[in-house]
Amino acid sequence: MEKVLEIGLLLDFYGQMLTPRQLEILDMYYNNDFSLGEIAQEFSISRQGVHDNIKRGKAALDDFEEKLGLVKKFISQKNKAKEILNCIDKMDIKSLNESDRISLKKIRDGITDIIENT
Amino acid sequence: MEKVLEIGLLLDFYGQMLTPRQLEILDMYYNNDFSLGEIAQEFSISRQGVHDNIKRGKAALDDFEEKLGLVKKFISQKNKAKEILNCIDKMDIKSLNESDRISLKKIRDGITDIIENT
Repeated sequence: MEKVLEIGLLLDFYGQMLTPRQLEILDMYYNNDFSLGEIAQEFSISRQGVHDNIKRGKAALDDFEEKLGLVKKFISQKNKAKEILNCIDKMDIKSLNESDRISLKKIRDGITDIIENT
Repeated sequence: MEKVLEIGLLLDFYGQMLTPRQLEILDMYYNNDFSLGEIAQEFSISRQGVHDNIKRGKAALDDFEEKLGLVKKFISQKNKAKEILNCIDKMDIKSLNESDRISLKKIRDGITDIIENT
């Protein structure tokens, strides 16, 4: 089973759609690097049972992403927002009047806020 | 049954999570103002059957929103982005140098793009 970076995002976006137990197992495995054996012990189930849970949970997350595409959109929006921030940071702040300088700071803070809460 | 504005957004965000038939019924009812009777005729089912489908579909959409909160987030992000656009539009464009004016246009276009693709 491949532990990929994207799974963390899938869990962030769709974790609440899994059962609490499934979410906990996937979180332990993908985000906290527990082994199948350790998780099996924790839940008093077989390693195969853990494996099946992870496989089913991962398939559910992939299905949500295929239908809703939140992670793909999130990554794309984040990249666009970073480009905007780069654009702001290239502007010649010193040449701006006081009022525009305050506006530009507000704009920058607003975009950062959008990125952090997407 | 209340036809609310928000249902359109719920269908936009979570429609793909419903069955194709459920999505079609809710789309007809909420977005295209078909009556229960007209939908019943279209699908050769009873009015009560249509009513049940709408009720279950709406409950599913509400459940998705409770778990994922995409519509709430969407509205909040859109409002923030509008505030940023207002901020940009209040800036004194004429006082900017050519390069900063181009940057500001790029920033404005970028934010508009984020709003339209959220």
